[in-house]
Amino acid sequence: MKELAIGIDGGGTSCRAAVADRDGNVLGRGKAGPANILSDLENSLLNIVESARQALSDAGLDAESVASVVSVVGVAGANVMDYGQRIERALLFTEGRVVTDALISLQGALGDADGIVGAFGTGSVYSARRNGRLKGIGGWGFIVGDQASGARLGRDLMERSLLAHDGVRPASPITEAVMTEYGNDPERIVEFAHTARPKDFASYAPMVFKHAAEGDVVAVGIVRDAATAIGESLDALLWPECPSICLLGGLAEAYEPWLSERYKPLLARPKNDALQGAVELAVKLLNDKQRGAA
Amino acid sequence: MKELAIGIDGGGTSCRAAVADRDGNVLGRGKAGPANILSDLENSLLNIVESARQALSDAGLDAESVASVVSVVGVAGANVMDYGQRIERALLFTEGRVVTDALISLQGALGDADGIVGAFGTGSVYSARRNGRLKGIGGWGFIVGDQASGARLGRDLMERSLLAHDGVRPASPITEAVMTEYGNDPERIVEFAHTARPKDFASYAPMVFKHAAEGDVVAVGIVRDAATAIGESLDALLWPECPSICLLGGLAEAYEPWLSERYKPLLARPKNDALQGAVELAVKLLNDKQRGAA
Repeated sequence: MKELAIGIDGGGTSCRAAVADRDGNVLGRGKAGPANILSDLENSLLNIVESARQALSDAGLDAESVASVVSVVGVAGANVMDYGQRIERALLFTEGRVVTDALISLQGALGDADGIVGAFGTGSVYSARRNGRLKGIGGWGFIVGDQASGARLGRDLMERSLLAHDGVRPASPITEAVMTEYGNDPERIVEFAHTARPKDFASYAPMVFKHAAEGDVVAVGIVRDAATAIGESLDALLWPECPSICLLGGLAEAYEPWLSERYKPLLARPKNDALQGAVELAVKLLNDKQRGAA
Repeated sequence: MKELAIGIDGGGTSCRAAVADRDGNVLGRGKAGPANILSDLENSLLNIVESARQALSDAGLDAESVASVVSVVGVAGANVMDYGQRIERALLFTEGRVVTDALISLQGALGDADGIVGAFGTGSVYSARRNGRLKGIGGWGFIVGDQASGARLGRDLMERSLLAHDGVRPASPITEAVMTEYGNDPERIVEFAHTARPKDFASYAPMVFKHAAEGDVVAVGIVRDAATAIGESLDALLWPECPSICLLGGLAEAYEPWLSERYKPLLARPKNDALQGAVELAVKLLNDKQRGAA
């Protein structure tokens, strides 16, 4: 009978799981539907459990043949209300711990080292590990936060396109492209904005970076504002001996040239992804538990 | 049998109507529920018609005893899709014209003179009459516009309170008051922000102005940004001979001390309110019609 560790990255697009032995060797992998626990807890629980079962099956094991399985699930919203406990209860066949998506990203990117991680996709969120202690900031959503998120870049683009349409701020190739897309009808932009979800706004982020690279004055303004916001958040976390800063997520590379020079010497490639971070944390938990039992 | 003009101010809180003779003497007034034609056309139509009937009744008239009634309805969204025509059809007993709320506000504030009107309440919108020609800008809603609206002031306050909570931007008495109100739990602010309607955000506007007047650094920053946005919009409309600028709406007085000095010589009190503007336009329409028939 084996003792196993399962790491699960419960993401908004899919849940991915990997099962490892106590030395961290990955034995199998699984994948299931998305986990959005704040909007659909029930299906999120099913998908988290399913990804774990697939990983065990991929490793040639079934849940019943396993003496001891420790799991770590990283998922957005794990720290909200009692969602973490509800996920732990759903993972009946394991001894589980539910942590934030930020923690498994940080563990994946930095391993056991200190440092800062900033993640830039549809949202934006930062975390730091300093002398082993964790601190997270940002990630409050694009309505009143996530200043460097794809959603904010897209929302800013719509706002500045309307200001250009009204003659309040200068027009540029990117605002003209937006107005053309919406048939030069500002009402249609307003209609889009009032039904758009974060990912709908974020779909404009690549267009913003493309025009900014070409020197478009409006796009450059939008990206500079976001890069300034990144700098402010990094400064809030940074300390003199901080060994590295990892930028993660779909927009990380696009932001790099826009960051202040003073962060560039610290920039480092992430060691691993969030799933690997979850596996590492699960392996630690398994070994801690055995030391506790010894 | 009388010839009458009815002006109707179809507002988001209530519909107000006034009936006048062809010399503009108001004979009666009426009031009914709100008109929000974009979100509830059916009840908006009922309330618009009801306010007109009450005004006729207040004047001692009933719709049937009147030979000719001309009406002008000012309502937000009148320029969107076919809403204007649908309102005209609902006002069966009158010959009607439906115009934007901005136009009746401008007519009320400026009378027949040229000038600029800026309205600052839950939203923010500008209009100008120059050599008799009308131009409107802004009013696109707080998600991607309305930079000087109460809704944006409140949304900015929530955003800066979260930044202060994270240690990214300085805290101040106003951000501390917000955090205290939400039990020092940023998640509760996020929850509020994701369900808040424009008027919910706008309910924080008086608090922002109060703290700004006391020198609160964060509140001053929020109000200065909004006042800068007002200046940019005024500049987009202003011309050398512009005789006056009228600021309307619940936040107009609060903004005045924050405006750039260069607008202050032009500031003028509005002559009348939007309802009176609607009456004036209706009287004009009645007289034009009679000239046409003569």
